[in-house]
Amino acid sequence: MSSETVYNFNAGPAVLPKSVMLKAQEEFANYHGCGYGIVEESHRAPLFDEVINGAEANLRKLMNISDDYEVLFLQGGASLQFAMIPMNLMIPGKKIGFCDTGEWSHKAIKEAKILGADIDLAFDGSADKFTTIGDASSWKFDANDAYVHMCCNNTIYGTEYQNYPETGDIPLIADMSSDIMSRTFDMNRFALVFAGAQKNMGPAGVTLVVIRKDLAARCPETVPTMLHYSTHIKSKSLYNTPSTFGIYMIRLVSDWMLEQGGVSAIQKVNEEKAAKLYAAIDNSGFFRGTCAKADRSKMNVCFRIGDGVEELEKKFVSEAKAAGLIGLKGHRAVGGLRASIYNAMPLAGVEKLTAFMADFAKNN
Amino acid sequence: MSSETVYNFNAGPAVLPKSVMLKAQEEFANYHGCGYGIVEESHRAPLFDEVINGAEANLRKLMNISDDYEVLFLQGGASLQFAMIPMNLMIPGKKIGFCDTGEWSHKAIKEAKILGADIDLAFDGSADKFTTIGDASSWKFDANDAYVHMCCNNTIYGTEYQNYPETGDIPLIADMSSDIMSRTFDMNRFALVFAGAQKNMGPAGVTLVVIRKDLAARCPETVPTMLHYSTHIKSKSLYNTPSTFGIYMIRLVSDWMLEQGGVSAIQKVNEEKAAKLYAAIDNSGFFRGTCAKADRSKMNVCFRIGDGVEELEKKFVSEAKAAGLIGLKGHRAVGGLRASIYNAMPLAGVEKLTAFMADFAKNN
Repeated sequence: MSSETVYNFNAGPAVLPKSVMLKAQEEFANYHGCGYGIVEESHRAPLFDEVINGAEANLRKLMNISDDYEVLFLQGGASLQFAMIPMNLMIPGKKIGFCDTGEWSHKAIKEAKILGADIDLAFDGSADKFTTIGDASSWKFDANDAYVHMCCNNTIYGTEYQNYPETGDIPLIADMSSDIMSRTFDMNRFALVFAGAQKNMGPAGVTLVVIRKDLAARCPETVPTMLHYSTHIKSKSLYNTPSTFGIYMIRLVSDWMLEQGGVSAIQKVNEEKAAKLYAAIDNSGFFRGTCAKADRSKMNVCFRIGDGVEELEKKFVSEAKAAGLIGLKGHRAVGGLRASIYNAMPLAGVEKLTAFMADFAKNN
Repeated sequence: MSSETVYNFNAGPAVLPKSVMLKAQEEFANYHGCGYGIVEESHRAPLFDEVINGAEANLRKLMNISDDYEVLFLQGGASLQFAMIPMNLMIPGKKIGFCDTGEWSHKAIKEAKILGADIDLAFDGSADKFTTIGDASSWKFDANDAYVHMCCNNTIYGTEYQNYPETGDIPLIADMSSDIMSRTFDMNRFALVFAGAQKNMGPAGVTLVVIRKDLAARCPETVPTMLHYSTHIKSKSLYNTPSTFGIYMIRLVSDWMLEQGGVSAIQKVNEEKAAKLYAAIDNSGFFRGTCAKADRSKMNVCFRIGDGVEELEKKFVSEAKAAGLIGLKGHRAVGGLRASIYNAMPLAGVEKLTAFMADFAKNN
């Protein structure tokens, strides 16, 4: 396997752009000629200031984030946000609205309940096992909700919102961990957007939080300092030492995204990759997509062989791996197969996969 | 400066062993020939299992950690531990004992108070501005304390405990962020030890927590999942995606420590480095150490020029930088000069610094 290109379809941590990996490697032990690595640099040094400010400026440009929002680089992943959001933003006597599209929604709901919140379920996808989302713009919300929480893309089930809920004056909060910057969206529709970096932005260990400034004022004083959004806003994500190397990698990945032409240019490639892969599934008479076609994710393509022939699926994963196509096993909660095709997965990787799928279908 | 060796005396993130930096660089984009980087690997993949299990095994060996303890790799730094510890381990109606040796103690006390705890101050170093610790083994504690919190090494003031408090049956909790594995210690004296990785273990963004198993049972169910030690114990630090690259670097640094002969061998070098640097200060008639000699840190050497001639100190920092000795400015809270000489700082770096100091004293 050593000389052949390996394509990594892991759901996250995931493939990063090849040119970014090579640049990070080249300057790993001697950053910009300073004589040591950026991973060894103080988070209060000018060299790192330039990294974090550059990362923020890139993200503001890529997502068209206005001055009404703060951009924070935190730790703990989406899972810690599931607790931080209600700790900071729940309001006594008001419910929290949730759109339940699967596992990551459940985890968020669980934390809100631990913190004593009452839940208002605006959408419940459990009846068809989270294979459908439908027209989110038609969902109704209780105007009295403290906020509404949604998860834009569902890595386990392979569904993705095609349009967003209309929540009016209720703050809309979105977990974009697995599709952030894979497609254009209007940040002004959201009060808070968060995402673990390890799918479309960089390595695991950094969590991006984009929060509307007025919302931060809601946080009660009884929240511990590190869990209080205001702390990180006031200190520009440097209250304590952040994941400096992770932020550096986000800087490089966001540089690369701008070089590609920004989110809309990347979205076009993502649409082409997804179209090819879903066509290979639908036209095979062998593989079968697991979600409602209208709600299919362009990031995580979930499929089965027939109605779920586990023996053949195991064989598929292992032969694909031998052919340099790795990480194709579905999530343990649902089984089957999954190809995660984030921004950094090149079209050539998808083409190699579809060719392999055609051969496999012919031979099995 | 390009061809000359640069020595990085930053207080953290800090210098890492040169051989570790070169190894990580070499395999950055192709880990063990797998065709992609470890930073791109799934945290649930066998390749990463080997990394995290290897890191844990190394740390258990280096610190002689028995099976009575769990070893966790978390996020959020010591600052998040300041909140997590009381959230999990405070007991209604009991006070928390604190040994106040400066800034990092204050931050821990602040979080305990936010969470509603009453504080029992067993030591208060404020009278002499935290330049002295003294004989900690003589301190008295209230047997009714829920636990006692201490910070072993104080990066800002340059003090370090020479012996540890005797707390009897009261669980003793130590923040070892800045001196972990720089000297041998008896883990069995502690109920919980924690440390941000970015000084003696690896990059910023991983927090090591070593917790005695019986203590974890104390955590109340009302603590959010990500802030609950039991969550991370049950899932072997993989409840959600941890900082995989950070854990990989800890693996490499701990491999390196074992190659050096373990903590006791490294301690000898640390003692030699500190002795040379303090001698250069004490014998100069120009520089002046800022702490009680008996309590001097072997990690963070704090000093001034005369009684604090700020203009000369500025000149020192800038001329040192030009000579390839960087990060020598003292913390903004106390001013002056500081050389952080963690495990990975080679003796040659200290020798270059002492030679520079002698020249500077002669010329100014």
